[in-house]
Parts: sequence; C-alpha cells; structure tokens
Amino acid sequence: MATSILKHTIFFLVATLATSLVARASDPDLTSDFLLPANVTVVDENFFTFTGFRVLNDAEPPKAFAVTKASKAEFPALNGQSVSYAALAFPAGSVNPPHTHPRSAELLFLVYGSLDVGFVDTTGKLYAQSLQAGDMFVFPKGLVHYQLNGDAKNPALALSAFGSASAGTVSVPSTLFGSGIDDNVLAKSFKTDVATIQKLEAGLASKA
Amino acid sequence: MATSILKHTIFFLVATLATSLVARASDPDLTSDFLLPANVTVVDENFFTFTGFRVLNDAEPPKAFAVTKASKAEFPALNGQSVSYAALAFPAGSVNPPHTHPRSAELLFLVYGSLDVGFVDTTGKLYAQSLQAGDMFVFPKGLVHYQLNGDAKNPALALSAFGSASAGTVSVPSTLFGSGIDDNVLAKSFKTDVATIQKLEAGLASKA
Amino acid sequence: MATSILKHTIFFLVATLATSLVARASDPDLTSDFLLPANVTVVDENFFTFTGFRVLNDAEPPKAFAVTKASKAEFPALNGQSVSYAALAFPAGSVNPPHTHPRSAELLFLVYGSLDVGFVDTTGKLYAQSLQAGDMFVFPKGLVHYQLNGDAKNPALALSAFGSASAGTVSVPSTLFGSGIDDNVLAKSFKTDVATIQKLEAGLASKA
Amino acid sequence: MATSILKHTIFFLVATLATSLVARASDPDLTSDFLLPANVTVVDENFFTFTGFRVLNDAEPPKAFAVTKASKAEFPALNGQSVSYAALAFPAGSVNPPHTHPRSAELLFLVYGSLDVGFVDTTGKLYAQSLQAGDMFVFPKGLVHYQLNGDAKNPALALSAFGSASAGTVSVPSTLFGSGIDDNVLAKSFKTDVATIQKLEAGLASKA
Amino acid sequence: MATSILKHTIFFLVATLATSLVARASDPDLTSDFLLPANVTVVDENFFTFTGFRVLNDAEPPKAFAVTKASKAEFPALNGQSVSYAALAFPAGSVNPPHTHPRSAELLFLVYGSLDVGFVDTTGKLYAQSLQAGDMFVFPKGLVHYQLNGDAKNPALALSAFGSASAGTVSVPSTLFGSGIDDNVLAKSFKTDVATIQKLEAGLASKA
Amino acid sequence: MATSILKHTIFFLVATLATSLVARASDPDLTSDFLLPANVTVVDENFFTFTGFRVLNDAEPPKAFAVTKASKAEFPALNGQSVSYAALAFPAGSVNPPHTHPRSAELLFLVYGSLDVGFVDTTGKLYAQSLQAGDMFVFPKGLVHYQLNGDAKNPALALSAFGSASAGTVSVPSTLFGSGIDDNVLAKSFKTDVATIQKLEAGLASKA
Repeated sequence: MATSILKHTIFFLVATLATSLVARASDPDLTSDFLLPANVTVVDENFFTFTGFRVLNDAEPPKAFAVTKASKAEFPALNGQSVSYAALAFPAGSVNPPHTHPRSAELLFLVYGSLDVGFVDTTGKLYAQSLQAGDMFVFPKGLVHYQLNGDAKNPALALSAFGSASAGTVSVPSTLFGSGIDDNVLAKSFKTDVATIQKLEAGLASKA
Repeated sequence: MATSILKHTIFFLVATLATSLVARASDPDLTSDFLLPANVTVVDENFFTFTGFRVLNDAEPPKAFAVTKASKAEFPALNGQSVSYAALAFPAGSVNPPHTHPRSAELLFLVYGSLDVGFVDTTGKLYAQSLQAGDMFVFPKGLVHYQLNGDAKNPALALSAFGSASAGTVSVPSTLFGSGIDDNVLAKSFKTDVATIQKLEAGLASKA
Repeated sequence: MATSILKHTIFFLVATLATSLVARASDPDLTSDFLLPANVTVVDENFFTFTGFRVLNDAEPPKAFAVTKASKAEFPALNGQSVSYAALAFPAGSVNPPHTHPRSAELLFLVYGSLDVGFVDTTGKLYAQSLQAGDMFVFPKGLVHYQLNGDAKNPALALSAFGSASAGTVSVPSTLFGSGIDDNVLAKSFKTDVATIQKLEAGLASKA
Repeated sequence: MATSILKHTIFFLVATLATSLVARASDPDLTSDFLLPANVTVVDENFFTFTGFRVLNDAEPPKAFAVTKASKAEFPALNGQSVSYAALAFPAGSVNPPHTHPRSAELLFLVYGSLDVGFVDTTGKLYAQSLQAGDMFVFPKGLVHYQLNGDAKNPALALSAFGSASAGTVSVPSTLFGSGIDDNVLAKSFKTDVATIQKLEAGLASKA
Repeated sequence: MATSILKHTIFFLVATLATSLVARASDPDLTSDFLLPANVTVVDENFFTFTGFRVLNDAEPPKAFAVTKASKAEFPALNGQSVSYAALAFPAGSVNPPHTHPRSAELLFLVYGSLDVGFVDTTGKLYAQSLQAGDMFVFPKGLVHYQLNGDAKNPALALSAFGSASAGTVSVPSTLFGSGIDDNVLAKSFKTDVATIQKLEAGLASKA
Repeated sequence: MATSILKHTIFFLVATLATSLVARASDPDLTSDFLLPANVTVVDENFFTFTGFRVLNDAEPPKAFAVTKASKAEFPALNGQSVSYAALAFPAGSVNPPHTHPRSAELLFLVYGSLDVGFVDTTGKLYAQSLQAGDMFVFPKGLVHYQLNGDAKNPALALSAFGSASAGTVSVPSTLFGSGIDDNVLAKSFKTDVATIQKLEAGLASKA
C-alpha cells in the first residue's frame, strides 16, 4: 500500500512538473550558464569536451559518403547553446543527396578536395557553386541543398556549422521514395506513372 | 524503508530534472520535430489529428455566442508548433465582448454571415470595420477587441487563427466585474459611484 | 533633372533597404552592442544616460495619479536592450485604473507609502495584495492589474521595471468608454442598457 | 553641386539607417502595436482588413489544385503578427505535391470534401491520415507533407493557418526537377540513370 | 520487488518526460499566464510578492559594497517573466568591480548619493559618466562595466532592473585571479610576469 | 528649392522607414529565405560564397596568435542565418587571452596541434581541459574563456563555430587596462595599488 501511495505521489509530482514546465521560453537566453541532462549530477571539464571527431584523423576514409555529427544527441553539453557541427566525408565521385535542415542554416567549410554545391530558394531559383579547399558556402535555413564531389580520383572533407544544437535532416530521396507514401500520390505529384515511381523506390531500396 | 529510499530517489530525480530543464529556450526553434506529452508513448497519425471541430457541421447552431477551441489544451500536438484555431459562432444579434489575447495576434476569417469588428490601440484609437463573408481582419497582439453580429435574423461563423499554441483570453467584463476586485477600486477607476459598479456586477452575474 | 534622377535613386535605395530589412529577427540577441537611432551620428556617454527622473526628487508631489516613463520613446538607448522603467506617483487615495501591458510583465517596487494591488489571470481568478514600503509584486505579462493608494493622508511612490524597452499600456476605462466603441456593443457586452454605458462615458470624459 | 551634397547626405542617411537597424530582434515581441510599410502613412481600419478570400465564395471552383494566400506579401498588416492563412482548393482527384514550409508549422482545417494527408518526420517515418469535413491535421515545422483529394467526383476545400506571417513554400518536384540542378547530381542522389531524371524533368515541364 | 517495478516506472516516467520537454521554446511567449515551481501546488497572492528588499529600509547601511537580488532564485514567480531587480548599496568610497551580465542589459537608477559609472564596448571604447541622484544609465548586454562611489563621506544606493529573470554575473577580478586559471596563461595574457599575477591573486584572496 | 523639397522628402522617407522598422522581431524566424544588404541588388551564388579562409592554406603561419573571421561583417550572407566561423592560429607557446563573446556560445574544433583551454562559470568555477587534434570543446555563452598552445615547438589551428552571425568579442586585458578606465577604479577593484595597475597598462600598451 505504501507503494500505491508512492505511485500516486510520483504521478502527482510528474504532473505538477509537466504543468510547471510548459514554455519556459520567454527569456531570449538561457537562464543558467548551461544545462545538465536529467541523469548527470557531477559536471567537470569532460562534460564540455567531445572526442567523437578524432576518427576523422584516421588514415582510412569511408567508402561511401558519410556524415559524423556533433549535435545535442552526441554531445549533450550543446543543449541550449544553439550551435553544432557535422563532418562530411566524400569519397571520389560521391554525392550528399538533396536535403533540408528544418531547424538551422548550414555554414560549410571545405577542408580539402573540391565540391560542387547548390541550393534552391522558395522562388525555385538555383544557386550553384564550385568550391575549392578553404572556401565557405552558406545554405539558408530550411532550403533544399546538395553537395557533389565531382572529382573522380580524390576525396573531399567538409566541416559544417549549424546555429542550432539539433538542426535535423530531411533527406529528400528517402523521404519521398522510402517512407511508404502512396505511389498514386507520388505519380500525380511528379506527373509520371506509377511504374516510374516504383522503379525509383526499388533503386533506392536495393542500394541503400 | 525501501519506500523511504525510493521517495528520496524520486525527489532527487525530480529536483535534478527541474534544475536541468530551466530555460531550454535558447534555440529559436524546436530542437525536435514535435513534442510528446508526458503520458504519451506511442505516437501515430491520430496524435496529429483533431476532430473536435466536426460539431461545427451540426444542423443546430448555438443559442448564445460560443467559442470552440483547437489549442494546446484540446490538441496536444500543437505544443511547440506556435499555431492554433478557434471557431466563433454568433447567433443573430450576439456579441463577443471586449477581450484581449495576451500571447498572440488573431487573424479572423468570416465563413458566413456578417460581423462588426473593432480593436483599440495603445494610443486609444479605435479601428472598426464591417465584414462580409470571406473577409479577414487582424487584431494585433495584446489589444482589446470585440465582434458583433448586428444582423437581427442570421447567424455568423468565423474561424480565427493564432500564432501561439495557447493564445489565452482575458474577457474584460468578467475580469473587471466578476473577479471580486474591490468596488472602491472600480468606482474610482471608472469615475463613477459604487452603486453603478454593483449594478454592473449584478447584471453580469445574473445573466452569465 | 538631376533632382529627378536623385529622387529615383532615393526611392530605389529606400525600397532596397525596406526589402533587405524584413525580419532580421533570427538571432536571439542583438548582433551589435547597441542600436543607434537614424538621426544619431555621434555617440558618447550621454546617449546612455537619462535624467528625466530627476523630477521625482522635487518637493511638490502630483495632484493626481501620475506616471513618468523611461522607455524607448524617452530614452532611445534602451532600443534593443529589452528593459525599461516607469515611476508611479500616487497622491493619497488615488488609483491607477485597471490596465494591461501587451509586451511585458511588470515588476513593481514600492519606494514609500502603501498600496493595494491586484491582477486577474485568464481563468478569472483575482490575486490581491497589500504592500508596504520595500515590497515587490510581479504582474504577469498581458494580464489586467491595478494599484490603489488606500491611505487617505499619505502619498505613495512605486518604481516599476519591465522586460521590454516598450511595454505599452492599454488602459481599460478609456479603451472601453473613451475610444468610441459603439454603445450597443458595450451594452450587450456588459449586459446593461445604453443609458448606463453613456453615463460611464460621460463620467470619464468630464473628469479626464 | 547642391545635388552632390544631397547625394552624400542621402548615402549618409541610408548608411546610418542601415547600421542602426541591424538586429532589432532582442525583444521577444514587437515594440509597437503594429508595423507600417515604408510607403504607408495613413492607417485606418482598411489596413487591417483583407478581402482577397472573397473569391472563395465564387460558384466556379478551379480546374487544378490552387492555393490562395493571405500572408505578409498580400496582407501587409500581418507583418510582425506571426500569423497567416492559405486556402487550398482541390478539384476531384487532385494533389498538392510534397513540399515543406521552412518558417512555420501548418494547421489544416478541412472545410468540405475529403483528403488523404501525410508527412514524414526526420527519422523517415510516415504519418498518413484520411480526413473528413471538419477535421484538422497539423504538419510540424519544416517537414515534407502532401494532400490528396482521392475522391473522383467531389472537390475539397481546406483552410490552413501558419504561425508566421511568411511561412514560405519549397515544392519538392519543381525544386528537384525544375530548377536546373545538374542531372548527374540527381541521378546519383536517386540511384537511377540520367535518362530517368530527364524523363521526370520533361514530364514536369510539359504539364506545369 | 514492488519497489523494483516502481523504480523502473519512475525511470521510465522521467525519461519520457525528459524527451517530451526538449525545447518547448518555439512560442515567443509563455504559453501560460505564469509558471509554478515543481514543489508549489497552492498559489495565492504571496507567490507574486517579494519582501526581501524591506531590509533596504534599515537604518544601518553595509560596511562594504553589497548587492541584494530579486531574481528567479530569490523570487520564483519571476520565472518566465523576463524581469528582475538588484539593489546596489555603496558605502563611501566603495566600488562594484568590473563585471558582465551574460543574459541581460542593466538599467541602473540612482536612488541617492553619486556614482561614477562606465562600460567598454566590443571595440574597446570606454563610456564613462558621473551620475547624481535620480539619474539612469544603461549598460548594454554582455559588456564589461563598473560603478564607483567616489564620495569620501556619503553612501549611495542604486536600483538596477534587468530584462531577464536570471541575468547572471561574471565578476572579472575573481574570475581571472580567484578561479585557479594557470598563472602562465594569465602572465602571457596580461603581458607581465608570474610574480605580478601571484601578487594580484594574493591581494584578492586576503581581502575577499 | 527643388533640393529643399527633396531634402524634406528624404527626411520624411527615412523617418517613415525608421518608424515602420521598429522591432520586426516577432517572428521566431526570418520571414524571407535570406537578407540582402542595402547596397546589393544582384544576387548570385557568389553572395553565398566566402573565400577569405583560403589564406589558412598558406605555407607561412602567423608570428603571433591571430584570428580570421567569417562573420556578418566579412560575409554579409550570414546576416539573419545565426551562424559564423572564426579560425584561431596559435604559434608555439602563444595564448588567446581571457575574453567573452556577448552574443553566442563557441564550439571549438582543434584541427591540429594541442591546446589547453578553460572557462569560468558565474559561480567562479574553472573548467580546464587539454585538447588534442580532432577534439571539440564548448564555451557556454557569455562566460570568460581562454586557449593556450603550451607546446614550445609546434603551432596549433582551431576552427570555432558560433550560433550568431555576429558573436562579438570582449578581450579582458585590453578592456580593463587599455580602454582608459580610471586607475583608481581598477586599483580598488583588484585590491592593489595604482602603481601595479599602471605597470599592467604600460606592459599591454608597449607590446600590443
């Protein structure tokens, strides 16, 4: 019975908490220096340190386009600090397919290699550029963009900064042709036939 | 004793959580696609669907001015999405008394009927308009506004959109004359006598 | 003709500027240390100084309730700094009538005298308190509140801080009964007759 | 020479203005009741009124899927009020192709007819629903979504509210296959051949 | 065993809650009138009242510079209301050393006495001013500033308002010379020798 | 006279504009895809490209600690996108002195070499860490931090991302001892004598 009372106490506390936490959003900034995860009680310098990018120094580059992230999920100290990183490794000839980040612009810095990049604004205009090592390009928030390593022999590496701890990624090919959207919707949308849609779905599925 | 330890554990967890949750407000956006309520663990398409407005299709309109809401309270998926709806049903000759929404502007769309609407800005200037079906009117954030269906025979229906999941409503008549503010404060404020204030209070109370 | 060209240049520049200025709101903070008004070119320490409250030291208190403001309008350096002040001077027995601030909470500090204060939340609940010198009271953002100096002999002075450079004020009596809202709307809203409304309007107008 | 001086004065003024306007974003709200466009000097009730949706009452529905907007561009009073509307008219069997709104969630209210709707979150999960008249569905901010009127005989009409005065739209088919992105990038991205890409481009172009 | 189940339930609830609470920051305002702390269940007028500044009326002023705060920590009702106060008491000849507030501008009102104040902007320019009773000075957000009561005989009292419920304070002397930063880092940074750094550290420590 | 009219027209336009531009901050996002500077009329892909970091590939490293920035000032397309970069080049044994960024957290990625870094929170606690190539460290918003290349022989290079297009920098040594703050204020603040303050000022000035 004590447990029963306890249970009610817990539900009560959680409910109170839930109510009290609605929308602590009115201050334009944090109201503390940093935020701790629910399960962290001791904080030292290691909480503010992230070593997950050391792998980028490895001799062996990836076989396919690969993203390594340092966002809120991998590096909890970023929570509330409105900044994060991603490293984009492009083997020769590889592409980062068209995608959007719903919660941030992306500022790409090309560490080595070359890249053909582009984005399309909401009026349908394409901005495409060829970058060399040391160049930067900004993809405005929420717009569709891509990067291609057009070099047939050499890899490329880019480091991208985001103004959110969790920018999110919507990959257009898998969202359209790998999520189960009804073929009829897609055929009408792309003004083609269901057979073409299914061919695209099959291609993406087999080589994912 | 185990329960005692547990109790302490719970309080500890809740306290930690409370600390860690202070002001996750620094990102200008959500840092996830959507937010789940504390008691929701399985999310499917029904979480994003709201059927509470089907009643608006009913044959029988209300006898008095009536508001139906689709805000965070009725439709939890709106939490964090900064948008909500209200349907305003006006029988012939009815009024939506002067009120403010502390947390959003209101964009009213008149579905059918006619309405006399208005708001007063902080300089005391009145902006009053007569709307016909299909018209829109925007009431800026936080300002006092009202709507009247001046038609003696026909009802009117409006749909209002808000840029907050929880705009809130301060109804001026009931706030002033139905909340228990001291009659002396009100008499001095309105430069009248206590008897007039009490007459207004009694009128509102009897016909509420 | 040179002037004609000039005119076009001006319109062009202004139009371009107008376009380019749409919504520089994405950073949660200023992107400069402070903001200068359009007509200020030399900035020194005087820009950050406001002497308009020296009058509060004067021997002669006001005959009626009076507000002295230090907001963006009186003190342009506050623009973008999200903070402002108002001094509220209450002769014996005077009232600051029910009002709201659409753009900020108010944190009142009672310098001397005594005050009866209160606000009503969006559920219609009244929170009323008697304050003595040195006390503080917070009126949450957008809610209707008032202050009364109930002391028949002694004045009171309060200093109020706001979390916006321009909190705005909606005075309920003058908004309702002094802005020209149709008497029929008001009579229906307050469930009274047009005669009572007109009496209230006349009272406010004659003693304004 | 006077014109020369004037020219410098103008450039000076505009430059000063440009500097002084950088990032007035620190207040979480407007610092005025509403915003006026650069070319508006007299404001009355018509500024807050929008009649562009009266056309929705017309007898003749559109032949193809059509959007009518009431956003900042069409209705300037919405600027700074963080809310807007769009009316979506679906002839029998028509589709609103997959798209995103970079700057707001969408809260769709189905006025009449029926719709099959869906969105895909950033983990690739599809949420698909069938709506009847009076239903609402919320598409979270920045995610890909679509609507189909699957009824072969009857039209459908939806009203959508947004929590931004300018939500923006990225139409996926035309962004991908109508903006001029290099065919090689698209073929690699969709794991198909250039011929299939060109067929899709041609289909969209011919039937646009 | 019941306790074991309970424990899991608790962790589950807390984990769910933690997930669901990530970033309720998308609304520019609170989505409720005010926020309650986790341990508060009954709210009355006392929750909105703070009496901690009554001590300022005491006859005996402090012997050294002293700050009394009314921020979120001391006055929980301020949470989410984006405003707070601090009272600064200066004995004759005392100083408030250079410091910054990371989360708000400061609007200082000089109640009595005189003060020499100043701040340095990010270009290194100093803005210094002498204030008399009744004057105000604004220290822009995040910039280093100080106040000195240069009067050898008379105390001074200032009231400062902040546009955050928790502005935070970084005191420069103790941050630099009292936190344990390596002496070598400091000597190089200030272009001096380690002996001078250690003398500064010793001085601050002995007279803290 | 035409010029006189023109002059008035200009002032009128600028005044109107100034009024209309107050606080377009209410939308949590941009209300356009990107922002153009006042003097930019043609936008192509070069507007979104920044080549100022190509110099980092140069053979010759700097002789003293050097910062290269890609912020709103150098790369105008970042305006409104809430993200920017800085490259920090450390010759052997060099230091980036204690400083704060008033408008953003900093996420440092160490490209090569080694660094000793640290920050002090508002409670005075130091968090110090030794980083190797590939490591990241986050300095929370507004807090004092530093970096030292303690290696006597090898240089180090770091790339830092910020969640603001214009983070700003307050360098503590030059702010304190190079801006002209009165020596008496500094001596009292650091609990030392004026001679020590003047020695620090002279040292910084001679080696700046």
